[in-house]
Parts: sequence; C-alpha cells; structure tokens
Amino acid sequence: MKKNLKELAKLVKGETKEKDENTKITGVAKIEDAKKGEITFATSDKFLSIAKDSHASAVIVPLRIKEFPRPIIRVENPRLALAQILRVFTPRRTEFSGVHPSVILGKGVRIGEKVSIGPYAVIGDRVEIEDNVCISAGAYLRNRVKIGRESFLHPGVIILDDTVIGKRVIIHAGTVIGADGFGFAKKRDGSYCKIPQVGKVVIEDDVEIGANVTIDRATMGETRIGKGTKIDNLVHIAHNVTIGKNVAIVALVGISGSSVVGEGTILAGQSGVTEHVKIGDNVIIGAKSGVTKDIPSNTFVSGFPARSHIRQKKIKAIINRLPQILKRIQKLEKIIKEMNNGNAKNH
Amino acid sequence: MKKNLKELAKLVKGETKEKDENTKITGVAKIEDAKKGEITFATSDKFLSIAKDSHASAVIVPLRIKEFPRPIIRVENPRLALAQILRVFTPRRTEFSGVHPSVILGKGVRIGEKVSIGPYAVIGDRVEIEDNVCISAGAYLRNRVKIGRESFLHPGVIILDDTVIGKRVIIHAGTVIGADGFGFAKKRDGSYCKIPQVGKVVIEDDVEIGANVTIDRATMGETRIGKGTKIDNLVHIAHNVTIGKNVAIVALVGISGSSVVGEGTILAGQSGVTEHVKIGDNVIIGAKSGVTKDIPSNTFVSGFPARSHIRQKKIKAIINRLPQILKRIQKLEKIIKEMNNGNAKNH
Amino acid sequence: MKKNLKELAKLVKGETKEKDENTKITGVAKIEDAKKGEITFATSDKFLSIAKDSHASAVIVPLRIKEFPRPIIRVENPRLALAQILRVFTPRRTEFSGVHPSVILGKGVRIGEKVSIGPYAVIGDRVEIEDNVCISAGAYLRNRVKIGRESFLHPGVIILDDTVIGKRVIIHAGTVIGADGFGFAKKRDGSYCKIPQVGKVVIEDDVEIGANVTIDRATMGETRIGKGTKIDNLVHIAHNVTIGKNVAIVALVGISGSSVVGEGTILAGQSGVTEHVKIGDNVIIGAKSGVTKDIPSNTFVSGFPARSHIRQKKIKAIINRLPQILKRIQKLEKIIKEMNNGNAKNH
Repeated sequence: MKKNLKELAKLVKGETKEKDENTKITGVAKIEDAKKGEITFATSDKFLSIAKDSHASAVIVPLRIKEFPRPIIRVENPRLALAQILRVFTPRRTEFSGVHPSVILGKGVRIGEKVSIGPYAVIGDRVEIEDNVCISAGAYLRNRVKIGRESFLHPGVIILDDTVIGKRVIIHAGTVIGADGFGFAKKRDGSYCKIPQVGKVVIEDDVEIGANVTIDRATMGETRIGKGTKIDNLVHIAHNVTIGKNVAIVALVGISGSSVVGEGTILAGQSGVTEHVKIGDNVIIGAKSGVTKDIPSNTFVSGFPARSHIRQKKIKAIINRLPQILKRIQKLEKIIKEMNNGNAKNH
Repeated sequence: MKKNLKELAKLVKGETKEKDENTKITGVAKIEDAKKGEITFATSDKFLSIAKDSHASAVIVPLRIKEFPRPIIRVENPRLALAQILRVFTPRRTEFSGVHPSVILGKGVRIGEKVSIGPYAVIGDRVEIEDNVCISAGAYLRNRVKIGRESFLHPGVIILDDTVIGKRVIIHAGTVIGADGFGFAKKRDGSYCKIPQVGKVVIEDDVEIGANVTIDRATMGETRIGKGTKIDNLVHIAHNVTIGKNVAIVALVGISGSSVVGEGTILAGQSGVTEHVKIGDNVIIGAKSGVTKDIPSNTFVSGFPARSHIRQKKIKAIINRLPQILKRIQKLEKIIKEMNNGNAKNH
Repeated sequence: MKKNLKELAKLVKGETKEKDENTKITGVAKIEDAKKGEITFATSDKFLSIAKDSHASAVIVPLRIKEFPRPIIRVENPRLALAQILRVFTPRRTEFSGVHPSVILGKGVRIGEKVSIGPYAVIGDRVEIEDNVCISAGAYLRNRVKIGRESFLHPGVIILDDTVIGKRVIIHAGTVIGADGFGFAKKRDGSYCKIPQVGKVVIEDDVEIGANVTIDRATMGETRIGKGTKIDNLVHIAHNVTIGKNVAIVALVGISGSSVVGEGTILAGQSGVTEHVKIGDNVIIGAKSGVTKDIPSNTFVSGFPARSHIRQKKIKAIINRLPQILKRIQKLEKIIKEMNNGNAKNH
C-alpha cells in the first residue's frame, strides 16, 4: 500500500503544501517509532516538539499549526484523520474464506453471500446470517439469532437465543450476549425462585462491544443497545436496559436492570448505575461514580451518589482539607473556651 | 399452552373472582406490551394505573387491591407469582438430545440418563455427570468434575479439575470455575513464587451463576458456594471463600481470599470484600461498598470502609453539605475575630 | 510421593531437629484438615495454637519459634516454604500428550518438542510454539502469535494476532489477549469513527494471568506486561499500557490507555488508573482507589483521587466523625450566638 500526501489530505479533508504533495507514505506509526515513509500525528505541544525531530515523512497536525519543519497535513480533528488514514493502511481482517467444514449448522439456517464462519463454530436452528458477516472460530449462536450484514464476531463470542444484531457490529472475543437476567423472587423461607427470562437482546447497527462483556436478555421485552454505541471490555449490562445512540461505556461499568441511558452519553470506567433510573442525553458520568437517581441531559456528574461534577470537585477539595479544617474548629473551640473563662473571670 | 385464570390462581395460591375464572391466558408480557390473551403483573400504583388501560386479559396484583377494572389474581407476592406463571409458559430449554458425536470423552467418564452434551464439548477423565444434565456446546469439564442431576451448563463454561457441582445448578456462558487462586509468596529479590493451588470448588444445589464469572479453587481445602445462592455476571470469588445459603451477589462484586459470607446475605453491585473477613447472616452490603472487617448478622452496611448504613447516610448527607458547613466555620472565625478585636478595644 | 523432613528442610533452606529428620511426609494440608503424614504451616499465634493440637506430622513455622510440641521446619518465610513444598507434591498438569487430531493448524505453524495442544484448539497462520508448551482444549491463537517454552494456556484462552508471549507464562481460562483497544474519534454528528488498532501485546517471561482477563492490543506500538508480573481474574488492561516487572494486580482492576506502572508495584482489588499516568516502582495502590495523576515510587496511596495513604486514613477517620464534628460546630454557633446576645445586653 502506497499513497502520496495529496491523496491522504483529500481523504481526511485536510490541507497540505503543494511542495509536499508527492511525499510517499507507506504506513502509520507512533511518533516514537515512525520511520521514513511513515506518517504520524501530533496534537499537543509536547508531541509536536517530538514530531519535529522524528524520522516520520509526514505529520498530521491541528489547523492552528501553520508552519512546521516537516511535511504536514493540517486538519480540524487530527484523531479522526488518524482513524481514517489507519483504515487505508489496515486491510479488513477476514480469518477464513467460506464456512469451515467443522461448523455445526442447525435446522433452517440462512446464510448470505461471502459469509465466513471459522472452525468449531456452532450455529443453532433458524439462525439468519446476512452477507459479508465474519464469525470467528469457536463462536456460538443459539436458536433464531440474526446477524446483520458486515458484522464481525471474534472468537468465542456467545450469542444466545433470539438476539438480533444489526449491521457492521463488531463483538470482541469472549463476550456473552443474551444470558439470563439476574431476576429472582424471594420466598418466605429465604430461598430464591428464578423468574424465567423470556425477553431478548437487540444490538443496533454500528455498535462495537469489547471483550468478555455481558449483556443480559430482558425478563420480558428487550434489552437494547443503540446505534453507534461503543462498549469497552468487562462491562455488565443488565436485563431490560436501554442504551441510546452513540453512547460510550468504558471498562468495568455496570448498568442495573431497566435503566435507560440517553444518546451521546459517556460512562467512565468502573462507574455504576442502579436500577430503574433514567440518564439523559449527552451526560458525562465520571469514573467510579454511582448513579442512584435520574440524571438530566447535558450534565456532568460524578461521585457516589453522583451529583454535579463542579459541586463534587468542590466537595472533594474540602474533604482533602478536612485535617486542617478540623484544626480550625479545634482552635475556635479553644478560643471560645478561653473567652468564656475570661468572661467568667470578668463577671 | 393455554391456561384459564382459575388454574393459574391455584398455581400461585392467589385469589380470583368467580366470574373471571374462565378467562383464557396464553402468555405473559410486560404491561406496556401485553396483548389480549396475556397476563401481566403490577405492584406499584404507577404500574397499576398503566395496567388499567392495558390490553392484558388479566393482571397479577398485590392482596391490598380489592377491586380492579380487569380480571385479576390477588397474591401476597406478585413477583413470586410472576416467576411461577412464567415457568408454566416457558418450556425448559434443551439444546440437543443426547451426546453429540463431536464430544470428546476422557477415560472412565460416567454419564447418567437423558444427558445432553452439545457439539465440541470436552469432558476430562473420570468426570461424573448425573441424570438430566445439559452441557452446552463448547463447554469444558476437566478431570474428576462431578455434575449433579438436572444441572444446566451454558456454552463455553469451563469447569476445572475436581470441581463438585450440585443438583439443579445453572451456570451461564463463559464462566470459569476452579481456576487457580491468586496465591504467591514474595521472594527477597521481589519476584513472586507461585503457591500451587491444590484445593477445589464445591457448588451446592440450586445455585445459579451468571456469565463470565470466576470462582477460584482453594489453595488447599475448598471454595464453597452455598445452596440456593445466586451470583450475577462478572463476579470474582477468590480461593477459600465460603458463601452461605441463599446469598445474592450482584454484578462486578469481588470477594477476596478466605472470606466467609453468611446465609441470606446480599452483596450489591461493585461492592468488594477484603481477605479473611466474616460477614454474618442476612446482611446487606450496599453498592460499591468495601468491607474491611467482620460484619455482624442482620445489619445493613455501606461505604468504604463499610459501616452502618444509617450512619453512612448521615455522613453522606453531611459530606454533601460540606461547602455550606465550611462557610459556617468561616463565619464563626470571622465573628470570633471581630469579638476578639472588640474585646481588645474594650480592654 | 514421599519425603522425609530432612529432605524438605533442605529444599526450603530451613532447620529441623535431628530427632525429627526421618519423619515421613506424604502431602500438604491446611491446619484444620491435616492428617497423619501431612505437613502444614502456621505463622500467626492463632494458627500456631491450632497446629499444636492438629494431627499434622510436621509444621512449617517462622524462625522465631524455637520449641514446639511437634516436628517443625523453621524458616524465614513460611509462605515461600509452603509454595516450595506444595510444588514437590503437585505434579505439573499436562492435559493431553501431543497435538490432538482435532486441532486446526494454519499455514506455516512451527511447533517445538513435547508440545501438547488439546481438542478443538485452533491455531492460525505462522504461529510459533516453543518446546514444552501446553495449550488446552478450545484455545485459539490467531495469526503470527508466538508462545515461549513451558508456557501453559488453560482452556478457552484467546490470543489474537501478533501477540508475543514469553517463557513459563500461565494464562487462565477465558482470558482474551490482543482484542482491539477502545479507541474512537468523535465526529461532528456525535457518532464515533473506529481508530484501527494495529499494535500488539507483549507478555514477558514468568507472567501469570487470571481467568476472564482482558489485555488489549496497542493502537500502534505495543501493550507490555513485564517479567514476573501476576494478574488476578477479571482485570482490564487497556491499549498501550506498560506494566513493569513483578507487579501484582488484584481482581477487577482497570488500567486505562497508555498508563505506565513501575516495577514491584501492587494494585489492590477494584482500583482503577486513568489514562496517560505514570505510577512509580514499589507503589501500593489501595483497594478501590482511583489513580488520576502520576504517583512517585515507594509510596502507598489510596482513595479517589488517590493520595498518601496516611493522609487518606486521617481523612477517613475525620469523615467517620463528621456527625460529631457537625455537632461541635452547632455548639460553637450556639455559644457565639449567646455570647453575642450577652454582649448585646451588656451594651
């Protein structure tokens, strides 16, 4: 794969200087590793400074950089440009061609064109797999699962009964979709009676789900992950949760049953959401926060219980000064005592 | 499957009106989705109000509801009644009949009657599987594992050497039982020497374990999960832990080595328990709490370190008011200063 | 397997009494379970007291114990001695001999001497497996993975493209190494564009990784786990993280992208590390802590944000007394008010 800077600049809607247009680019690398022929990217002053001395043949920089001692592509969003250029140099992975002879197919399975299914995958009854889907080795699709076109399931992914997966969805290895929700009724003797979980999971188009994630089926109805949402590793999403579009959920987050997360919201790492709450659109939930009640749209909350991030920061700052504050209280107490003693003497 | 209200009322030990006894029920649904022929359930005023306007043919309601504009079954515990009625309309899943020809069996394996083992499962030497067990595709049982009757292992479950699993146990996909505990001895040079983990795991009857859970084998002796205990997804249970009967452990909880959890206790999501502590019976551990010492029975604790929930709530309320409290301190300081200045002037 | 105390004492560089040297030992057990012929170990006074009355034929004790009513081995580090003696009585597990006929091998795979590969494992193109490696059933190695000699991969382990694994590495079941990092560029319309993750993961020698762990590949460059590091279950390590030598990472920890952890550092359970921070050598990160900025070497930090553990403990103690402190403030306010009223009256 070889591109010149002019082609790449066009691809990312960026600007390059005429004299640099013919610079040949054969790959992408981190600043520290970039060799001749490679393009890299830099946004902060620190990385721009490193880029000056690197061996990279070109650098993607933000628009504010007008002059640079090396060939550049100036763009509004360098991170997005990086993504676009990396795609050019990264061919789409396909593991196998066609359906491996070891694949076990249930009854009434429908498989589209150019589908790959790796060794030892098991496909249940009446599963429907659209065109250009890739299902890796050892994956398991139980009965009536549907997979939309161009989706990619990594090895060992387990998709249970009736799950509906949209187009261009990526699911990383070891993830389990459609296990039973955690639903039990407590009996008088203290034992639990299982509430059968008869709902399903729907994953909309363009969702990406990390490794070893769990998304449970609904008790009744559905658990739904909105279009374009991205989920990191080891995330737990409980039964009947509804996640909106373009939500980002970072690693080790847990979302409890029946909660709703609005569009464009971000849940930072190790945060948690209790049952039956509603989080609005474009909310940011800080790392390790615990959401215990509804959160309005367009807010940044953190802490446990999650509250306005500005207030939380103020509170954290006071907590950090508590030893000194306690001393101030002790000093006040001492002064008051002395004043009272003085008063007592005065009287 | 078709039942009338009289039959269902009898099943859940509930009451229905004579005029409604012949109402035909063909399924169960959430209030929002319930169609003619379906039964739903409602406990809170909010859902009771929705139920009035739903298309459901009948509603399970709490005993306090005497009159309702639709056919009802009045019960003490609507959630339990829902579980019982859902069971009627949900046939037990069995994936395959018999042992799939691709299953690899070790030496001296004993398999009971009516056992199903899915494709590409691997069964080690001297494994014992009792009657009516279902082991899904791609599951792995290492040497000398025992599985009690009617237990159900979902796809990709991995059960390591010598694990003993009771009757009617359900284990969801991707869960690993019997991996080595995290035990190392630190050497003088800072490196770690592995302590071989030669104990085992015992899962008692009627336990349900979620997806991608890990329960480690004991260093020596056993890790034990008590009868009827229910474990959610992505929970970690360390070596030599003992969990009592009917415990509920919510997602992303971690329990460290050698700790003991009493009967009927609940650990809410993302809580953690340190090593070698003893938690009593019927304790509630709040979400995200960190248990650092023994907890007596019949208490509700939260926070980190976990303390009485009532005290923790009081503390949280004060923390939330810290900015105002700090202002009150500043005001006191100002007054005192002025008083002292005044006093100074007076003298 | 049978050893006498003299042999075991020599093995662990400990001391035993001449009269006990011929005591025969056939196994190791916990104090509570130890039977005749077995050796156990005790460090604390509590366990030493139990050991006196146990049926164990010998006890490993710390050097400070000079006399004991049973045969003893006195050692500097009883835990290390336990590890060494357990190794004697625990033969190395090997599941299968040779490569099972069901294993799928890609093109150009190189397999060393005495390698075992279990049923239904899938090995990609140009994978290199050194001598004495054991790969369990259902494991998956994608293209160009390298596994160093004597490493052991448990069932269902998934190692993705280009991952390099050192010698004597142990990886427990269900772990996924080399899944794509969580990297996206946000577009103007709020949707995310995937940044292809083209880097790799390097696991150095003597690392042990727990069950259902996820270690993501670098965006570009590498994610690296240092020699001798030990990782517990359900840990998430993000793209481009660098972990030093002999680090211990306890269960449910999450380390965000590009962070660096120094040598000999310990991360306790459920702690988290934000992006792009640098943690020094020999640091202890307390349970549930959240590291938000660089941490110098040789420190013990805890809390969120993580700060000096001593200060954090002081702050926690004050927080625990906040209800009383608030009362002290209220009392001060009352006194001041009365004093002012008094003053007012005086004037």
